[in-house]
Amino acid sequence: MNINERLTALRGFMEKKGLHAFIIPTTDSHLSEYPASHWASREWISGFTGSAGTVVVTREKAGLWTDSRYFLQAANELKGSKIELFKEGLPLTPSIEEWLTTELGEGEYVGIDGNVYASKDAFNLTHTLNRKGLHLNGDYDPFNEIWHDRPEIPANPIFVLPEKYTGEAAREKISRVCDAIERNGAESLLVASLDTIAWIFNIRGNDVKCNPVAVSYAYISREETVLFINHKKLTAEISDYLKAEGVIIAEYDKVFDYTSKLKSSICLDANKITFRLYNTIPSDCRIIDMPSPADLMKSIKNEAESQGFRNAMERDGVALVRFLMWLEKAVPTGEVTEIMIPGKLIEYRSQQQNFVGESFDTISGYGPNGAIVHYHVTKDSSLPVKPEGFLLVDSGAQYFDGTTDITRTIAVGPLTEQMKKDYTMVLKGHIDLATAIYPQGTRGSQLDILARKALWDEGLNYLHGTGHGIGHFLNVHEGPQNIRMNENPTTLQIGMVTSNEPGLYRTGEYGIRIENLIRARHETTTEFGDFYSFETLTLCPIDTTPIVKGLLTEKEIAWFNEYHKFVYDRLSPLLTADEKQWLKEKTNEI
Amino acid sequence: MNINERLTALRGFMEKKGLHAFIIPTTDSHLSEYPASHWASREWISGFTGSAGTVVVTREKAGLWTDSRYFLQAANELKGSKIELFKEGLPLTPSIEEWLTTELGEGEYVGIDGNVYASKDAFNLTHTLNRKGLHLNGDYDPFNEIWHDRPEIPANPIFVLPEKYTGEAAREKISRVCDAIERNGAESLLVASLDTIAWIFNIRGNDVKCNPVAVSYAYISREETVLFINHKKLTAEISDYLKAEGVIIAEYDKVFDYTSKLKSSICLDANKITFRLYNTIPSDCRIIDMPSPADLMKSIKNEAESQGFRNAMERDGVALVRFLMWLEKAVPTGEVTEIMIPGKLIEYRSQQQNFVGESFDTISGYGPNGAIVHYHVTKDSSLPVKPEGFLLVDSGAQYFDGTTDITRTIAVGPLTEQMKKDYTMVLKGHIDLATAIYPQGTRGSQLDILARKALWDEGLNYLHGTGHGIGHFLNVHEGPQNIRMNENPTTLQIGMVTSNEPGLYRTGEYGIRIENLIRARHETTTEFGDFYSFETLTLCPIDTTPIVKGLLTEKEIAWFNEYHKFVYDRLSPLLTADEKQWLKEKTNEI
Repeated sequence: MNINERLTALRGFMEKKGLHAFIIPTTDSHLSEYPASHWASREWISGFTGSAGTVVVTREKAGLWTDSRYFLQAANELKGSKIELFKEGLPLTPSIEEWLTTELGEGEYVGIDGNVYASKDAFNLTHTLNRKGLHLNGDYDPFNEIWHDRPEIPANPIFVLPEKYTGEAAREKISRVCDAIERNGAESLLVASLDTIAWIFNIRGNDVKCNPVAVSYAYISREETVLFINHKKLTAEISDYLKAEGVIIAEYDKVFDYTSKLKSSICLDANKITFRLYNTIPSDCRIIDMPSPADLMKSIKNEAESQGFRNAMERDGVALVRFLMWLEKAVPTGEVTEIMIPGKLIEYRSQQQNFVGESFDTISGYGPNGAIVHYHVTKDSSLPVKPEGFLLVDSGAQYFDGTTDITRTIAVGPLTEQMKKDYTMVLKGHIDLATAIYPQGTRGSQLDILARKALWDEGLNYLHGTGHGIGHFLNVHEGPQNIRMNENPTTLQIGMVTSNEPGLYRTGEYGIRIENLIRARHETTTEFGDFYSFETLTLCPIDTTPIVKGLLTEKEIAWFNEYHKFVYDRLSPLLTADEKQWLKEKTNEI
Repeated sequence: MNINERLTALRGFMEKKGLHAFIIPTTDSHLSEYPASHWASREWISGFTGSAGTVVVTREKAGLWTDSRYFLQAANELKGSKIELFKEGLPLTPSIEEWLTTELGEGEYVGIDGNVYASKDAFNLTHTLNRKGLHLNGDYDPFNEIWHDRPEIPANPIFVLPEKYTGEAAREKISRVCDAIERNGAESLLVASLDTIAWIFNIRGNDVKCNPVAVSYAYISREETVLFINHKKLTAEISDYLKAEGVIIAEYDKVFDYTSKLKSSICLDANKITFRLYNTIPSDCRIIDMPSPADLMKSIKNEAESQGFRNAMERDGVALVRFLMWLEKAVPTGEVTEIMIPGKLIEYRSQQQNFVGESFDTISGYGPNGAIVHYHVTKDSSLPVKPEGFLLVDSGAQYFDGTTDITRTIAVGPLTEQMKKDYTMVLKGHIDLATAIYPQGTRGSQLDILARKALWDEGLNYLHGTGHGIGHFLNVHEGPQNIRMNENPTTLQIGMVTSNEPGLYRTGEYGIRIENLIRARHETTTEFGDFYSFETLTLCPIDTTPIVKGLLTEKEIAWFNEYHKFVYDRLSPLLTADEKQWLKEKTNEI
């Protein structure tokens, strides 16, 4: 079936069900950022492979809405289909709702699969459509019918993450979650987020690429805690473990029966529970819609998790040193291409203890490809890495004891003066955030400017966030905290880990980003209250060759030299004599 | 009548009306920050004179809720009354709602005067009380009955502010307001905020101390625009002016009749329209509750207003130079006390053209009194200004062409090392905000840290905002923008004027604050978009004697010396030879 045949099949389904339009978002029944292939219906219907976008199909037309990261790629991938590209964020682009109201007539029906649509979004959509005389129907999943070789929902085995890594038993976490929901006046909590479930129960899986999670739902209360999961994923040992932690195991799709019998009150986050699941809850059960207290708990890493991060960083750092040494030797031979790099990184990382896999697809962009913020190298796009300019490498790994995410921008040869200045401004921002001291109660949006100020002073900026939360051997992106220009009411709390990744992108020329992971910690207590600071977790040298030292302050230079000494002290005992010698040179004082 | 007799009178009224509690906030029918004396019922009932606080009276008890600025003063002023002090912000202090639910029984009635209560607050209160089985009654103003010598609503004459100062005719402003409300789908706008009305119609009044506003309401639409105002305030000339601008004049209290006949749709801000006025609007008139577009327009000063600020600053600067020269000579004689200072400032300012009055009560705090952020000097509190340590003076004036607000912290004699370091850290913050460059779309909450970073690095902080908006010959505090730790979604736009006033307060020792007014302006346009910066408007030397130069960066020193050169260049042509010589010394390069 080609794309146009698939659209025809969908339209046949729509006609049968009396639907005049169908919206296909990019998510799954757990509202994951990265869904398993079973839920890749947007890619299947459109051929567009980007990580974000929404397809809307009417009886006559079809459109894909996606953001600026994917304008070029989408235009390419949609070629030959009859799907129109709608570029989000441009002033003349209609929203999906606006487009639907011009395309549809009064009283017509818009379909969504309520099983892959956030309830909050569905409520808003219903409201908007109703104001225009249109109706929403969330009852059907057409892809079960029309997508003949649709992959199954993954049923990969799960495993227990030992308490030496998690630092807290599932039973204890459940009890703390119950305390928190009770403080908010609820008696139970409904969770569909796969990483939150993995964290609560101290289990990990292999259902989503790069995300060590297991497809499941959870219901948590003092009276009973239920994990809804495909029994094929469980061994007798794991079942025994869960029972011992006080967890009842139920079949994955029994969650809907269960929630339809709920009484009293339940806490949930309507942004993280699907429309279908929400609608099963009886009207006499009071719903307390709020950010999940379990998500906040997960983001505050305990001592074992924090120590796990530190340990994982040593092994990741050793792998990166070996990678950088290889790169330094290999580039001048002319043999290096962008597309070789992800494999090389896996090769070095997989030699390390506790390595599980990548935490996301490596971004490996040379020269102009480095300026594409979410660049995904393909055979067609891969450039040879010539011995000049910048190579940007953003990669990360999953270890049993932690998740890593690091970006280095490497001068693979001579640089222009502008490249050096740009690099130094990005480095200043990185250091100025890394050295921040801030009172308890500070939000990431207040600190964001520290990473941008050196750039803003020169009329420069980057349009992505400065820092995202990161899971402990879990998803590389997790909330609720972040460090961005946009407001986020979550305050930074001791033990939260985020990235610190300012950058600068000169379209058609090069991209620069310098990323370490940082952990909030207590710094001091004065008559003005408690003050926090960041501990930098990542252990890897930062290329010194592009630095214009005169543009750094004494304090910035001091941090940089201390960081490099710290990297050397931590990594050198794990290196061979040659490697140690190389690292010594790379971490010499500037 | 003493306070307890007043409470008895109120309880008599409550009993007659079937009310079990009554809430008395600090505001007026226009939800002003500073109400006229007619509305000073909270002060009348309690004896507490602070600018913020709420009194709640039940049949048996009474309480005053106020914030930390007023804990000491309130405790003093409540002595002898049976009113209990509730300290807001302390962990064990119940909220008013919590207290009411413990004091009252199911089904009982809480009274407010809906004519001095924001509708949004009343809706929230209704909701909270209903959840606890209590009812709200907003129908009565007991003070009309029990406060026998209650002052009248002010009926002072108004005057027209000429277009040479306002830069835009009322007719034009009305037309722009109509454009804005139409863009939001409404056909009319209801305004109760006195400063917004003054701005729209280019009128000023004298009804509230320090705030040149006139008690009135306004209804604005393409079809008709009505100013509801006491006719006693108008001359024939002003009536003619308003008619010529297309404005219909109606009696002040006719607004309620008028709004009860509204049709179609009206835009209003439920935070700035009283519960009583809101409730007059018929249910078939659609209410679009949003921040008033007129408030945003008012905050963006046009060229004439901006130039007015600059001109007013010259005259204010001359007055301040004369004040500072007097202070320098007078302190060593031992004759200076805190309480003399407000009068001295008025004396010098009143010699200046276009001077109207103070823009707020001068804060004049010597030594430990400087550490009281909202200190109001009284005969009892006034300290002699000895020739040592710091004197903090925060003052401002109303001129026909602009409003000023300036704080200087003056070393009136020898300082400790800690004083010098603290002063320098506050100055660093002031300069780092003054020199900020930031992209279009930046909010004040993103920039706030620039003024605090030097302090945070030392474990220091101040708990007030860094910057408030300021009116053009209007209220010294105006929105919607500000520069604070708290989130505020308003972005800084070219022409907005705010204060820049970091500080540091050592309880029992001294306070430091350095405040100038700054105006957002365009700085540069690059491939990364438009960038803005601040123009400092205030013209007055900043005391150099406490500065520890080694703690300032080169960039900070450069700004400081440039600012002082700018102050000298602008003020010296207006000074006598002696004054010029004095200013030259005070603005010498550091």
